[in-house]
Amino acid sequence: MDAKVRLHLDQPLVQGQPLTLAPEQAHYLLNVMRLGPGARIAVFNGRDGEWLAAVEPDGRRGARATPLHPTRPPGTPPDLWLLFAPIKKARTDFIVEKAAEMGVRRILPVQTDFTNAERIRRDRLQAHVVEAVEQCGGIFVPEVAELAPLARLLDGWDGARRIMLCDEGAAGQGRGLPEPPPGAAPGPWAVLIGPEGGFSPTERARLHALPFVHVASLGPRILRADTAAVAALALWQARLGDWGSVALP
Amino acid sequence: MDAKVRLHLDQPLVQGQPLTLAPEQAHYLLNVMRLGPGARIAVFNGRDGEWLAAVEPDGRRGARATPLHPTRPPGTPPDLWLLFAPIKKARTDFIVEKAAEMGVRRILPVQTDFTNAERIRRDRLQAHVVEAVEQCGGIFVPEVAELAPLARLLDGWDGARRIMLCDEGAAGQGRGLPEPPPGAAPGPWAVLIGPEGGFSPTERARLHALPFVHVASLGPRILRADTAAVAALALWQARLGDWGSVALP
Repeated sequence: MDAKVRLHLDQPLVQGQPLTLAPEQAHYLLNVMRLGPGARIAVFNGRDGEWLAAVEPDGRRGARATPLHPTRPPGTPPDLWLLFAPIKKARTDFIVEKAAEMGVRRILPVQTDFTNAERIRRDRLQAHVVEAVEQCGGIFVPEVAELAPLARLLDGWDGARRIMLCDEGAAGQGRGLPEPPPGAAPGPWAVLIGPEGGFSPTERARLHALPFVHVASLGPRILRADTAAVAALALWQARLGDWGSVALP
Repeated sequence: MDAKVRLHLDQPLVQGQPLTLAPEQAHYLLNVMRLGPGARIAVFNGRDGEWLAAVEPDGRRGARATPLHPTRPPGTPPDLWLLFAPIKKARTDFIVEKAAEMGVRRILPVQTDFTNAERIRRDRLQAHVVEAVEQCGGIFVPEVAELAPLARLLDGWDGARRIMLCDEGAAGQGRGLPEPPPGAAPGPWAVLIGPEGGFSPTERARLHALPFVHVASLGPRILRADTAAVAALALWQARLGDWGSVALP
């Protein structure tokens, strides 16, 4: 009964109500995967969990999918954001893909003093996130925000959302992650990954002075930004998130 | 004084003793980086730390590098191995690159019951590791072993080397990572990442029955093998390795 194909549909999923697929989705199902009428696929929209759906051709090249019954309940990851400074295209793609896999709610590309990126293709990154969620069996689609200067984000930051700062230039300084509150959610958090060139002295001074910033060490070796993102998200999830207490008490 | 270029040389580094560079290294320094006589580079061989060296052209197309003085002492990462089942080329490259960045001593590609890979290019993966260490500022070069069947590795396994098993099919089962021994090294360990198709029932039963295997959870979402490798190494390093106690007590 496990459907091999998973599709993200940005429409409400209601039992028995056929949904018209986008032309490229119809092409993928009918021509690439060669599914016939009545074939079963899994669909999700990021809000209504996962559903088993039946595929029907629609017109000459179109297709529809009809949700049959839910297979997984809706689920949201912990209230965790990832802030990172976009770098080369391949590694930026990698970071958003991994963030989607590891469970975050929002992905915020930031401009720092030492970041070169002046623009990103937000729509392309969002599509990349959707693809990653389709492939890794997820049911929640994190939103990719527009590129914004870190300084401006910090100006308007809600201090209730704590920041796990991974700052190579400051290993061993500052407070680490707190103990998880017993039996309660950890509250809103964000992981902030420094750019490959590091933070500027101004940025570093400001970040370290903020009362909601927690500095975490990622060890004595220099990590690339994409490696640091996965490592930091793993530490946060194991310590405060929903990875359970098997690995870390 | 920070040298921009780092080269791995598989020769002893002795003060004042010129080393002949490989033709592709000479080409890289003289033609790509356009370094002139006397230019400073950083060199390391995985054993003698990092040295500042002076470049001299040698003949028509060759070059030599003379170690001037050590800039960083030798250092080895914790006694940690990474065992993983090779998959697609790009993700296999990624895993060995990340393992080199994150600090492991050996990288062991393994064949599992559900792995398709019948061979790997060990020399190519080893060269990829060297390149990753050059770029991430490391001084230790992990060795890439030949592809070997997991079952045979386990037949000859030294039980003193404990295994952190990341097994999606068995989250919540078994013992997690132990407390770090106070003030002492954690002893030899290996992280074993399951293949994308999971372990076979036979493999899983055998692994879970081994007294030196510790099952660790990587959360409720399905991670790709490359993501799982980085996440597991991060958890191990933070808990038992040399990432210090800032992030995790």
